[in-house]
Formats: sequence, structure tokens, C-alpha cells
Amino acid sequence: MKSAIELRLELDDLYARYAASLDEARYDDWIDLFTDECFYRVVPRENFDRNLPLSTMMAESRGMLKDRIYGITSTLYHQPYYQRHIVSGLFIRKNEGEALHTQANYAVFRTKQNEISEVFNVGRYIDTVVTDGGRLKFKEKLCVFDSELIPNSLIYPV
Amino acid sequence: MKSAIELRLELDDLYARYAASLDEARYDDWIDLFTDECFYRVVPRENFDRNLPLSTMMAESRGMLKDRIYGITSTLYHQPYYQRHIVSGLFIRKNEGEALHTQANYAVFRTKQNEISEVFNVGRYIDTVVTDGGRLKFKEKLCVFDSELIPNSLIYPV
Amino acid sequence: MKSAIELRLELDDLYARYAASLDEARYDDWIDLFTDECFYRVVPRENFDRNLPLSTMMAESRGMLKDRIYGITSTLYHQPYYQRHIVSGLFIRKNEGEALHTQANYAVFRTKQNEISEVFNVGRYIDTVVTDGGRLKFKEKLCVFDSELIPNSLIYPV
Repeated sequence: MKSAIELRLELDDLYARYAASLDEARYDDWIDLFTDECFYRVVPRENFDRNLPLSTMMAESRGMLKDRIYGITSTLYHQPYYQRHIVSGLFIRKNEGEALHTQANYAVFRTKQNEISEVFNVGRYIDTVVTDGGRLKFKEKLCVFDSELIPNSLIYPV
Repeated sequence: MKSAIELRLELDDLYARYAASLDEARYDDWIDLFTDECFYRVVPRENFDRNLPLSTMMAESRGMLKDRIYGITSTLYHQPYYQRHIVSGLFIRKNEGEALHTQANYAVFRTKQNEISEVFNVGRYIDTVVTDGGRLKFKEKLCVFDSELIPNSLIYPV
Repeated sequence: MKSAIELRLELDDLYARYAASLDEARYDDWIDLFTDECFYRVVPRENFDRNLPLSTMMAESRGMLKDRIYGITSTLYHQPYYQRHIVSGLFIRKNEGEALHTQANYAVFRTKQNEISEVFNVGRYIDTVVTDGGRLKFKEKLCVFDSELIPNSLIYPV
């Protein structure tokens, strides 16, 4: 049985590696932070608050996450940009033993080639974390972002 | 007697709930993070550095905080916006046993309807935290923001 | 022998004091966070990824850091601005016992006189931390920022 403190350190580590792998475009490492059966969704706050089904990005399994990454890195034509994640305010909403329901605020900065860095997407993560193979992983990750403008320029996961 | 580590986890949790309650506009939960006798003040850095008394927002008790929230949610005419708090660099300036003097950096992002998210207000929290009813609460919270422009558009607490 | 948890609290504290000392322009305190023999470098991500030697700012000892600070505070003509650091996602890349190899994401906001706060410089710290005189200090600090534009307006350390 892990202590509250050990759990907290492992959670911090999970979120740190989530940000680092995305920002360094190490997508295989990023996918490894999810369980096989997983749910990933990016949704505007308004849709979330009103229970509207529309998602800006969605994957219902690790296989779909891999497809998405393949699309990004191999087939889609798009102008690449760097991402930089800043995450804070992580807390455990509910500890069900098997599953931890966590929440955190995030800000993603985007840097396009030959441009200055800018605020890209801010919001909160509403996640379910489980132990899988001795490590914490995301079983569900919901990214609820504040801007009502749907950024069709959202290429990479946030 | 709490260990340094327990205290740190509780502090992290206090700051996380502070951000989450404001950003989700759960103002009753936010007010619950303050002691009955409390002091809340938002002040530009220049005024703070020069010891000038002018505040952008101030409340000298939980009752005044409630009045402010009532004004925001019920009577004031204003264009609503979403807030998103990112807080980091929390440390204990001084531990007086009864009272913890803490400090942290914050960045608040604002999202107006049909607009993109933007940097709204950045600065530092200079706080006094005490145990009240078995939980850590803010006895004093001073928000010192960097921009010398006084944002008259600052509606919600930061 | 420190526990993983004690080490983590001390690391958090080191990064918090790094941000606070820079943002409050307490440069002597900032220099004290480095070992005598130290290496500080600010470099664009593209140069870092391609192993190009060009640095935006560099110091190869604490003496050079002091010179730089002297230049900033005493001799250089420049328009001053406030900095605000937000740091998150700290993790230990490798623990060699003597030396900790750490990484974290950072966002620095800049506030010029009579202007609003803006995103200034975002990136990651790639650091080496050692124990020196009973405290953790930076032996190496590499700041890799995302924007390919070299900000010649970068006056202060980030």
C-alpha cells in the first residue's frame, strides 16, 4: 500500500513526463503513459459544461492514439509548431483505491517557426489514473479548454 | 505535529483548491479557504514596493469577501470572462508554528467569449496560512501583480 | 542519506528560490544558488537540437555570473522590465548520487513599464544539481527556449 506521499510523488512524475514527452515530440513515450483501454478527449469548456458531445480531438483506445500520432507525424500536411506545457494545481478529486480521479490546470504555449511564443490553449485536465504494470497511467484524460473558439489549428495532443 | 512533508502536501492542496474554485467560479468554496478574520488585497507591484496604500481590490474580512462575490455574481454589470490560474514556486518564507508565511508565483489567463485565451495578470502571492478547524486556510492573501497598468477590467479575485 | 521525498522537497525549494530571486531582482541570492564552478547557458531550441554552439547568454563560472549581473545592474543601458517565472513538470532524469540531472518546463512573462504583461520566453531547464555546503545548488543550468527568434532584448537571466 502506497502512502499518500509516495502516491503524490508518482502523480507529479506522471504529469511531468506527460508534458515532457509531448513537448519533445516523443510520442511513443507519450502513448506509453496511457493504459491499453483508454479514453482521450479534448473539448471546449462550453461543450463540457452543457454536456454537448462535440470534441475537438478524441481517441477511445491506445490504438486510436497511435493512429492519431501516425497521422500527425507521417501523413498530415501542416505547419509544425513547438508546444510547451505548464501544469499546476494538481489534486486528487476522489481516491477510489483502484482509480484516482485527478484534476490539474494547464497552459500550453505554441511557438511557430520564426515567430514568438504565444498562449495557445489553457484549461484543465480531468483525469482517471490507475496502476498498470506497476506504474501510474492515464485511463481517461479529458482536456477541457477555456476558449470557445475551436482551434482548427490544434494539431498535436495537449 | 505535522511533518514538513505533510505540511507541504496540505499547502499544495490549499493552493490547488484556491485555483480550481476560482476558475470554476465556485465562489462559496473559494471563500471557505479563508479564515473568518482575513485580509485579501490585490495591489500593483509598484505600489507594494513603495508602500503605497492604493489597492485594486481589498477585503478585510470574510464578510467583505462575500459582499464582493455577491456584487460580482448578482449585481454588477460586466462582460464575463473565464479565468485560468497557473501557480508555481510555492515556498515557506517563515514558519512561525501558528502561522506559515508563504509565497508563490501566479499567472492568470483570461478568456472572453469568442476570443482566444490571453495573459491577464501575473505576479506573486504573499500569504499567511493558519490551521482553522483542522484545515489550512488563508488568513492573509496579498496578490502583487507586475503590470503597472491598473486593470479596471479586473472583476474576479485573482 | 536523504529519502526520495526529502530530496524532492529540497529540489522544489531550489527551483522556487531560483524563480523568486530572479523575479524580485535579488541577484546575489540568485548567484548563491550556483556552485563556484558552474555553467549557465541560454540557448534556442534549434541550436540545442542541432548541437550548434551559439548561445544567447553564457557563463562558465560564478565569477562570470557576477560580471553579468554587474553589467545588468550597473553599466548596461537598457529599458528595465519585470520578469515572472512559472516553472512546472520538474523531474529527475538521472540520479547519479553525487549529481542529480533534472529537467523542468518554464514560462517567463515580461512586464515593461506602462505595458501589459506578456509571454516572453518559454522552454525547459536541463540542469545538474549537487549538494554544496549542505544545500542543493546548480552546477549546470541550461535554458533551452522554444522561439527561434533570438531575443536581443533578453537582458536578465531566465
